[in-house]
Amino acid sequence: MTERIDHTLRGRWTPEAGHLPPHALKWLRQRIGLTGATTAARPPAVPASALDDDARAALNDVVGPGFVRVDRDSRLGRAGGLSYVDLLRHRGEGALAVPDAVVLPGTPEQVVDVLRACAEHDVAVVPFGGGTSVVGGVEALRGDKAAVVALDLGRLDRLVDVDPVSRLAVLQAGVTAPRADRLLAAHGLTTGHVPQSYERATIGGFAATRSAGQASSGYGRFEDLVQGVRLATPAGEWRLGGAPASAAGPDLKQLVVGSEGVLGVITEVALRVRPRPAVERYEGFAVDGWERGQRVVRALAQDGVLADVTRLSDVDETGVTLALAGGWKTTALKAYLRARGVGRPCLLVLGWHGRDRAEVARKRRDTLRGHRLVSLGTPLGEAWRHGRFNGPRQRDALMDVGACVETLETAAHWAALDELRDAVRGALLDALGDCVVMCHISHAYETGASLYFTAIAARDAADPVGQWQVAKAAASEAIAGLGTISHHHAVGADHAPYLEAEVGALGLDVLAAAKGVLDPTGVLNPGKLIAGGPARPGVASTGDR
Amino acid sequence: MTERIDHTLRGRWTPEAGHLPPHALKWLRQRIGLTGATTAARPPAVPASALDDDARAALNDVVGPGFVRVDRDSRLGRAGGLSYVDLLRHRGEGALAVPDAVVLPGTPEQVVDVLRACAEHDVAVVPFGGGTSVVGGVEALRGDKAAVVALDLGRLDRLVDVDPVSRLAVLQAGVTAPRADRLLAAHGLTTGHVPQSYERATIGGFAATRSAGQASSGYGRFEDLVQGVRLATPAGEWRLGGAPASAAGPDLKQLVVGSEGVLGVITEVALRVRPRPAVERYEGFAVDGWERGQRVVRALAQDGVLADVTRLSDVDETGVTLALAGGWKTTALKAYLRARGVGRPCLLVLGWHGRDRAEVARKRRDTLRGHRLVSLGTPLGEAWRHGRFNGPRQRDALMDVGACVETLETAAHWAALDELRDAVRGALLDALGDCVVMCHISHAYETGASLYFTAIAARDAADPVGQWQVAKAAASEAIAGLGTISHHHAVGADHAPYLEAEVGALGLDVLAAAKGVLDPTGVLNPGKLIAGGPARPGVASTGDR
Repeated sequence: MTERIDHTLRGRWTPEAGHLPPHALKWLRQRIGLTGATTAARPPAVPASALDDDARAALNDVVGPGFVRVDRDSRLGRAGGLSYVDLLRHRGEGALAVPDAVVLPGTPEQVVDVLRACAEHDVAVVPFGGGTSVVGGVEALRGDKAAVVALDLGRLDRLVDVDPVSRLAVLQAGVTAPRADRLLAAHGLTTGHVPQSYERATIGGFAATRSAGQASSGYGRFEDLVQGVRLATPAGEWRLGGAPASAAGPDLKQLVVGSEGVLGVITEVALRVRPRPAVERYEGFAVDGWERGQRVVRALAQDGVLADVTRLSDVDETGVTLALAGGWKTTALKAYLRARGVGRPCLLVLGWHGRDRAEVARKRRDTLRGHRLVSLGTPLGEAWRHGRFNGPRQRDALMDVGACVETLETAAHWAALDELRDAVRGALLDALGDCVVMCHISHAYETGASLYFTAIAARDAADPVGQWQVAKAAASEAIAGLGTISHHHAVGADHAPYLEAEVGALGLDVLAAAKGVLDPTGVLNPGKLIAGGPARPGVASTGDR
Repeated sequence: MTERIDHTLRGRWTPEAGHLPPHALKWLRQRIGLTGATTAARPPAVPASALDDDARAALNDVVGPGFVRVDRDSRLGRAGGLSYVDLLRHRGEGALAVPDAVVLPGTPEQVVDVLRACAEHDVAVVPFGGGTSVVGGVEALRGDKAAVVALDLGRLDRLVDVDPVSRLAVLQAGVTAPRADRLLAAHGLTTGHVPQSYERATIGGFAATRSAGQASSGYGRFEDLVQGVRLATPAGEWRLGGAPASAAGPDLKQLVVGSEGVLGVITEVALRVRPRPAVERYEGFAVDGWERGQRVVRALAQDGVLADVTRLSDVDETGVTLALAGGWKTTALKAYLRARGVGRPCLLVLGWHGRDRAEVARKRRDTLRGHRLVSLGTPLGEAWRHGRFNGPRQRDALMDVGACVETLETAAHWAALDELRDAVRGALLDALGDCVVMCHISHAYETGASLYFTAIAARDAADPVGQWQVAKAAASEAIAGLGTISHHHAVGADHAPYLEAEVGALGLDVLAAAKGVLDPTGVLNPGKLIAGGPARPGVASTGDR
C-alpha cells in the first residue's frame, strides 16, 4: 500500500501478477476450453492533447505549475477505469478514450475554480479518485465539449477533522481507503469500509458511487456512513449535513451521494467512524444448497444478527473455489460434508469484529443461535480474508492466459431473488456459451440482498470487447424490472441506458434539472449516469465506439 | 381509535379534555403565575369559497359527486394543523386560512387527475392526511393561485400488498397509523412507527415529513422504513424503489421522502415491516444529572445496544413530571434516589420489544451491561407508555386554563448538543419570561441525538399568537447553525425561512428545479418547505398574517 496511487499501472491492478496455479489452468482448460494462448498486448493509441493553450493557461493559473499534466503516462494513467473492457482497451483492443490533460487541484476551493475555468473554456471534466470504476464511471468522454480533462483528486489527501465524541471524521475526497484507516487509526478509529477496491479506491469515489464494503452488514453501506458532504460545482460550493438525522425537507445529501461526478465534485466527506476492532474472527461454514443458505442469511438479516461480514457462495462458486484452491483436500472435505448432510455445499463466510474476544464470542453466539451450520473452521475464513482483495489480481492473471472474465452485480427483495438469479445466470450462460457463472450474496438486508456474479469464458480473440458487451447487455436486460442495475458498482457510462427503467423518465428529468442548477454548461462527467442510452437519442452511447 | 379521522375536532385533539388535576394547576400558578382565567373561544371566520364553478365541476368529474365538499365543517376541519398557533386560530385568535373546498380522491390515479385539474384551473392544493402538522405544513395557503383546496387522502386507506418473505408492505397514503397496525396485525406484522401523533397521523404524512416514532431506536425513522414510493404529480406518476439497496445513482426516494407535498402527493408507500412483538417491557430509571444521562444514552447508541424506546428527560422535565404527576410519593422517591447517589434525577425511560420474554430479557441485559442505573421499576415505564399519546390532550387542557404551551425540537451531533440545548433554552426563557422549559432526548444515534423542548407560560391575552411567534423565532434563530431546524416535525410554513441556513441557496435552487419538473405551474402546497422567508422576497411569509 502506497500513500499515492501509481496510475501508470492502469491496465492491471498491481505489478505482481495474480496467482494462477497450474492445476487451476488445467481445470479451466477442461471446463471452458481455455487454451492458455495469449495475445500480445498492443500499446493503446494516445492522440495529441486537444486542450488549447488558453484553457491550459487558465487551469495552470488555478492549480499552479506542474499540476496540469499532458504527458503520455499521466494521461494514459487516468484513461478509463478497471472494468474488463477497460483492461482490454489498455491492451490495445478497441478504442481507448484518453483525457487531454490531468489536473491536480490542491484544495477544495481550487476544485471550484477548476470547474469554472473548464466551464468557461468548454472543457469536460472527469473526476478521478482511485480510478477503480468497473462501469465506465471515469471514462474520458468529452460529450459535446472541445476537450476533456481528468480531475485527479489525489492531492486532497488530508484528514480534516476528527470528533471522537460524536464519532465523526472529515476526510478529503482523494484519501485512499488504506490511508483513511491509517489516519484514523491514530485516533483508534476506522471507517470499516472495505470493498474489494480497498487498496486504491478513495473516500470521494466511495461517496460518489454509493460503495458497499465487504463488512457492510456490520458497518453499513458508504451512504449510511456519510453525515455531510462538501461539493464543488461550477455554480459554487454546496455543503450539506450537520445533524445526525433531520426532517428539514428531503435529504439532499442522498442526492449528492451517488451523483458520480455529474452534479459536482465531492471534495470532503464527513463520515461516521467506529472504534477499530481489536479482535476479528473469520470462519467458514458449509450450508446444504443455495435455497437453505439464502434462508439462513435472510433469517440472520431479519433477526438483526448478521455477522459483520456475511458472504454466501452458490454451489458453482463454492465448487470453483474448491477446484481453484486445489491445495484444499477437496475429496476429504466433500466426504466430511456429506457425512454431515451437506451434499451440495454452499460456502458461507462469516466475520465478526469486536473490542475483545468476549464481544466477538457473544456476537458469534447471537449469529449462530438456532442455525445448525457446519463449521469449516477459521483457517478457511482467514484464507478468505487474506485473499479478499485478490479478485482483480486473479482477473489480471486469467486475462493473461486468454480468459474473458468479469463481474456484475444487482440486488432485489428476498421474494424476487431467485427469479433474478436465474434470469441473470441464464442470460450470461446463453450469451457466453461454454463458461463458468458463479454467484454470491455479499450484502444482506432485512428486505433483500445483493447478488454478485462472476463469469469466466475463453476469450473471443476476434472481438473480445464485443463478446463481453453482448453478454453484459443480456445480463442488464435480464436485471431490468427484477432488480437494481447496480447494488454497489454504480451507473457510470455502462449502466446509463438502464437507469430510466429504474427511476423513470421523471427521475432522469429531475436529475437533469438538478444538473441544470449546479452545472449549467454541462462540463461535469458527460456520458455518465443520466446520459441515457438508446431510448434517449442525441446522447452518445458508449456502445458507439 | 376510529377508522376515519373526525376532522370536525380541529382545534383540539379529542373531544375529551386532557387530565389536569388541581395540584398541577396550583403548581403552575405558583411556578409561572398561571391565573387559570380562560378566554372564551370565538368561532373562526370562514370566508365564502373562492373555488369557481368550472374548477368545481372539473374536480367533481374526477372524484365523483359527494367528494368535493364546500360545507363549513368540511372546510374548517382541514384548516391548518395542530400547532399551538393553529389551535389559537381555531379559538378565534388571529386569521385562520380555510381551504375553499375539500377534495377526496378515491384512487392514486384520481390524485394525478385532481392535480392536473387544479393546474388547469389555477387552484392550489394542500395534501391533507391526519392534519397533525405542528409546523404549518397543512396551512391552506393559496400562494398566487385563485383558490386552494385541501386534498384529503382519507379514502386511500388500503393495505395494497404484503410480502412476508421480504417483510414488505405497500400501504396507501391515507391509512392512519392505528389502521396500518391493525391491517398488518392480521399478518403478524407491524410498522413499529409510534409517534405522538399516532392516533391520527397517516402513512403518507409520515413519509412526506420524515417522521420519527417513539420507538425509532428499535425500528428506525420513517425514511428508513420506506422502500418505495408512488408519487402523484401534475407531470404524471413517479414510482421509485424496488431494491433493498442500490448504487443506481442518487437515492431519489430520499428526495420524495420529506418533500411535504411540494413536489407531489405520496399515494402509496412500500414499507419495511417487522413481526409484531409479543412482549414489551417499559422501565423507568433515574440518572444523576443531564450530563451523565447524556453520556449513558450516547454510550448505548455507540455500542449498538439502545433500547427500542430510549427517552431521557432533563432535570426540569423530570421535576415537572414528578410535580404534575403528584400521585407519586415525590418526597419518598427523592430520598430513595439521594440514598443511591442521584441528587439531580433525570428520568430515563427504556422500552424493549421482543418475540418472547427471553429475547426482551436478553436485550435488556445488553442495554444495561456496564451501566449502573437506578431502576424505578416497570410501573413508571408503563405509566409513560400509557400516557405517551396524551401530550396533545394535556396541551388542550393547559390551553383551557390560559397557558401558552408548545413544543419544538432539533438535533445535533453529540459534541454540539449541550451548546444547542443551552442556546434554545436561553432563547425560550428570554422570550417568554416566567415560564417552564423542559427538554428530553427521545431519538439517539451514534453521532448525535434529538432535543425536544416543551415550554409553558401564562398566555398573553392581548397577543397570544405573537407571544409564541416571538419565542419560536428566537428559538429557531438559536438553532440555526448549531442544529437542524427540525428533527421530526418537518419544515412546513413555519420553518421555511430557516431552510436556506441548513441546505444553502443551492439546496433551495435544486429543490425548486425539481419542483419545476414535477409541478411546473406551482399548484402544490405553496408557502411550504421551499417558500423561503424574509431572505427570499416575493414569497408571502406566514408571519404576515
